[in-house]
Amino acid sequence: MIVAGATGFAGALSAHLLWRHPGFRLVAVTGRSEVGRRLDELYPRYRVPLTIEELDLDGLDRVDAAVVAYPHAAAAPTVAGLCERGARVVDLSADFRLSSLETYEQWYGQHPRPELLSKAVYGLTELHREAISGAAIVANPGCYPTASVLGLAPLARAGLIADVVIDAKQGISGAGRTFDDTTHLSMAGENILPYNVARHRHTPEIEEQLAELDPALSGLAVQFQAHLVPLDQGELASCYVTPTRTVAAAELAELYAEAYANEPFVEVAEEPPGTREVRDTNFCRVFAAADGHTGKLVVLAAIDNLWKGTSSQAIQNLNVMFGLPEAMGLA
Amino acid sequence: MIVAGATGFAGALSAHLLWRHPGFRLVAVTGRSEVGRRLDELYPRYRVPLTIEELDLDGLDRVDAAVVAYPHAAAAPTVAGLCERGARVVDLSADFRLSSLETYEQWYGQHPRPELLSKAVYGLTELHREAISGAAIVANPGCYPTASVLGLAPLARAGLIADVVIDAKQGISGAGRTFDDTTHLSMAGENILPYNVARHRHTPEIEEQLAELDPALSGLAVQFQAHLVPLDQGELASCYVTPTRTVAAAELAELYAEAYANEPFVEVAEEPPGTREVRDTNFCRVFAAADGHTGKLVVLAAIDNLWKGTSSQAIQNLNVMFGLPEAMGLA
Amino acid sequence: MIVAGATGFAGALSAHLLWRHPGFRLVAVTGRSEVGRRLDELYPRYRVPLTIEELDLDGLDRVDAAVVAYPHAAAAPTVAGLCERGARVVDLSADFRLSSLETYEQWYGQHPRPELLSKAVYGLTELHREAISGAAIVANPGCYPTASVLGLAPLARAGLIADVVIDAKQGISGAGRTFDDTTHLSMAGENILPYNVARHRHTPEIEEQLAELDPALSGLAVQFQAHLVPLDQGELASCYVTPTRTVAAAELAELYAEAYANEPFVEVAEEPPGTREVRDTNFCRVFAAADGHTGKLVVLAAIDNLWKGTSSQAIQNLNVMFGLPEAMGLA
Amino acid sequence: MIVAGATGFAGALSAHLLWRHPGFRLVAVTGRSEVGRRLDELYPRYRVPLTIEELDLDGLDRVDAAVVAYPHAAAAPTVAGLCERGARVVDLSADFRLSSLETYEQWYGQHPRPELLSKAVYGLTELHREAISGAAIVANPGCYPTASVLGLAPLARAGLIADVVIDAKQGISGAGRTFDDTTHLSMAGENILPYNVARHRHTPEIEEQLAELDPALSGLAVQFQAHLVPLDQGELASCYVTPTRTVAAAELAELYAEAYANEPFVEVAEEPPGTREVRDTNFCRVFAAADGHTGKLVVLAAIDNLWKGTSSQAIQNLNVMFGLPEAMGLA
Repeated sequence: MIVAGATGFAGALSAHLLWRHPGFRLVAVTGRSEVGRRLDELYPRYRVPLTIEELDLDGLDRVDAAVVAYPHAAAAPTVAGLCERGARVVDLSADFRLSSLETYEQWYGQHPRPELLSKAVYGLTELHREAISGAAIVANPGCYPTASVLGLAPLARAGLIADVVIDAKQGISGAGRTFDDTTHLSMAGENILPYNVARHRHTPEIEEQLAELDPALSGLAVQFQAHLVPLDQGELASCYVTPTRTVAAAELAELYAEAYANEPFVEVAEEPPGTREVRDTNFCRVFAAADGHTGKLVVLAAIDNLWKGTSSQAIQNLNVMFGLPEAMGLA
Repeated sequence: MIVAGATGFAGALSAHLLWRHPGFRLVAVTGRSEVGRRLDELYPRYRVPLTIEELDLDGLDRVDAAVVAYPHAAAAPTVAGLCERGARVVDLSADFRLSSLETYEQWYGQHPRPELLSKAVYGLTELHREAISGAAIVANPGCYPTASVLGLAPLARAGLIADVVIDAKQGISGAGRTFDDTTHLSMAGENILPYNVARHRHTPEIEEQLAELDPALSGLAVQFQAHLVPLDQGELASCYVTPTRTVAAAELAELYAEAYANEPFVEVAEEPPGTREVRDTNFCRVFAAADGHTGKLVVLAAIDNLWKGTSSQAIQNLNVMFGLPEAMGLA
Repeated sequence: MIVAGATGFAGALSAHLLWRHPGFRLVAVTGRSEVGRRLDELYPRYRVPLTIEELDLDGLDRVDAAVVAYPHAAAAPTVAGLCERGARVVDLSADFRLSSLETYEQWYGQHPRPELLSKAVYGLTELHREAISGAAIVANPGCYPTASVLGLAPLARAGLIADVVIDAKQGISGAGRTFDDTTHLSMAGENILPYNVARHRHTPEIEEQLAELDPALSGLAVQFQAHLVPLDQGELASCYVTPTRTVAAAELAELYAEAYANEPFVEVAEEPPGTREVRDTNFCRVFAAADGHTGKLVVLAAIDNLWKGTSSQAIQNLNVMFGLPEAMGLA
Repeated sequence: MIVAGATGFAGALSAHLLWRHPGFRLVAVTGRSEVGRRLDELYPRYRVPLTIEELDLDGLDRVDAAVVAYPHAAAAPTVAGLCERGARVVDLSADFRLSSLETYEQWYGQHPRPELLSKAVYGLTELHREAISGAAIVANPGCYPTASVLGLAPLARAGLIADVVIDAKQGISGAGRTFDDTTHLSMAGENILPYNVARHRHTPEIEEQLAELDPALSGLAVQFQAHLVPLDQGELASCYVTPTRTVAAAELAELYAEAYANEPFVEVAEEPPGTREVRDTNFCRVFAAADGHTGKLVVLAAIDNLWKGTSSQAIQNLNVMFGLPEAMGLA
């Protein structure tokens, strides 16, 4: 097992989780910067005593699996190279998340390796477990789609969504290890900052997943808005659903209880969930309520953007891919 | 000028602003607790060297004006008593915000002094300046309605709102000087906490104001949801409007520019506003965008919940009531 | 195993660690308040699904071990009762930390059960491992003494301390689940707050331990000062030592390397440690430097006040007491 | 009046304070980066609507005064150029803070313009008011020396200091608008980080000032240690003084009361001061206690590192230099 791109937040946490994972052996961490430094120097709290190497695909010893934590467009060629050498890959970028090439190019520009799209499975474990178990490439979901789709899936599957507005909030780690005005504590602190207004790239990912759950939603344009709030790890998707028909509180409760009864990492909450409740875990906490005043449904889904939203979900997917207990290394 | 209820955040900041205000003379601060302590002991940073007294309406020397910072239901009798003794009052509670007694009682229970409702003016300065100037009682708006209505007013007035979802986020000072799990730093920190799901009392206030701006909205049920995020002062209302017709970006820009061209405390922003930009000020920063993808309109309004959302708006109203320059003591 | 006093931060985290511990079975959590509520309702993130009971010493089934998380003075009688019923106890209070009754009474007032003092062992695992293994009562150290003494022990043992100033900083969780101006995010945030100036009760604990390591220090009065800083979990003790003789950098490095070479939970750092590096762990990170300018020695010791400073050190002690691997349940 | 180097935190706040100052007219802000952008785009909350220019000393219209906010070594030539053109300068860098060239070069390397040292006055207003009023160059103190020296001055002047340890803590704004691991909220948050162990450049500045107050201290090596804590603005210097003789509490209280009786910006506190009490102000709050246990004196001095520690002290100095009321624009 290797982690390519271990110097960013997502790669580093993936390395940390894999280093202590009883079912995998992390043999190398690579980076496009910081080569030669030890990962535990860069991230002391993760205590991974490996030295960051340059990724040399040709010189690579055989690896069974890899987590690739590169930015979109940069990821695809590396994923391709690893696949060609026999590794099964969980890719944290957006490169393989959308099944439609057209949609990808509309939001991200030209795709570097479109021929691989058909080999990739969307890695929202709870929805695609079986396909993930046999996949060569697992496209780990974006953090916002993870929370949003887990929150909305029971409604979509039941054909109850007519329209939806998603207002998502996330801690500063969501901006990654980038250094600018949005991450500097003296500017990010005491701030609530909306960003990417009316054009967030996680939108089509959510739309594709909802349409897969309910084909009637294939034309739905989701209103999605993201905000940075001054904490480190945590994400809440607040979803406001115009239902296709009146939904009573009891029906709603039953719908969610059934949908997630057997899911080890989705908790249906009895109170509106705060993100602290899932910090440093792979859990998603979901709460749904029918608003008698407006007739709309309010769904709240809380995750840790770095864990279930990124790195621990990658581990969950690796567990599924390699036939290990799904919660191994995550409890 | 007195401040009744100066021990809470709203009253204390009002006292601070009035103490340094060149046009008013703050002669007393009263409290229902902490009597005998100095206010600058309780709030050192506000440096108001007055001793907290019990409010004795009968023993009161003549005062021209008062800010009342009591919880709802507790406020009305005090407001009444002050009015009877000739004071003009800015009331920070909800007691006089709703013109409909029926709506009040539906959300808050029995009204202690319904006969005074007709003497009260809703204190969103930008919308009701003239009425405020002559009012005996000014009902200072809730912080969420302040941001929401300032954000939506140009659309409502133009008849452009068919439906609206408001997702609001606020710092912990919004919970006031209450001591519990929602305000303890070790629980409020690293948390995003939705609360009062599908039943926030600021909803009817927003609905009344929108309906006043556009009578066609008199039956509209607004979807409103509040969240606590880990900062001190700051509030953002993110409003998602289904328009009555297509609105182009240019029209939208012009609408907002015109609406607020002469408003000293509303800034139409060119970028999505962060709440830091208005911290410790009476400004409201508004940003509007048409989402080409969904056809909806996104309106973002940022204020400091303690300032424009509460105490500095009270000063702005007092300035208007007493014929002083509107920005006096607030620049 | 039971946790008595599980509603506070220290007890709740102890319960969390014991609930998932492979070597112990947590059968009950008790509280002096919140009886009847589930612990995972109070602390959702800890996911301990036990209901809080009243502690009924007489009705108690036989328990082998207990963690007592009561305030000082309240703890001693409970510890006594549990001991009498055959349980071995880790007490998180100050009641059994000082071997000198006179010193205890000077700082805390009358001792409720002085006859038990001789049965108690000071639970700084790294210094008293052997005594802990056989003890009936283990007095878990205060968080400040944990960091301070681990930082200073190598110097004390080598007779190198002539005088010492300790300036300690700690996150808000150190104030516990108390609700007041020092813990409210709107007052604790953006604040650095010194407290208990010139009279912190952790001082005698540090002095006793240093004197035990170096009898020449038995008369030393330690200058100790505590501060609250706006984070949740984390503590740094900055120690400024006037040495008994000149100490070169190399000697200092060797002294610390040797002292902690075999300690699983003390890391001698190469860079000044930030508390983030030990957050949510049982590690103490120590750094020592000789200041060529002043001739003094600077020792920095970082811990998580709730973990190594309190609850995880309790588990470490329980592991030692019951002959389990010392790191069990803590890795 | 111009501000050179207005893109950093110190320069931007200086520009903000000067823009609203009734006694000065800010005509230009310059920067070594961001030229052509408006300052209120970079710092929306400061609302200074000037465009950032390149500093062109030769093309400069006559200016009476300037604030220079450059890094050390880069500042001196600019200060020199401005002086030659007739401007009186407050320099925020370290270039003119030390009267001893030898000490400067020992800590900072070669001095770019040593011939100007004699024209510069150390700008700790409370200590050097008269010299400042006539100075061509005022070297604005470092933030740590500001708090430390104001805290210790009464003791030094009375000959009471035999030795001193200063442990200082500061918010992240103290690191300036630099972007790296120490300022990223996801790394600076939940962290207490000691830095520059045993070699902070503010040390000689403190030593020079103390020696000036008490010549007996001319050989004293001050133990100084700095820490970053997770807030924006705020700084506390905790000073531990070994006195030359026993000092009783009453004498200590009188000493401080007298020393600062007439100082508009130094408050002698009755309780240990939190930094929140001075946030966004030019105040320094000082508290002194005699520790009966150790015989040492504990002095705590709180400032806002960006205000009294930097920019508002620059304004205070400008007021003194130009014969304006000292508090003008700062109240």
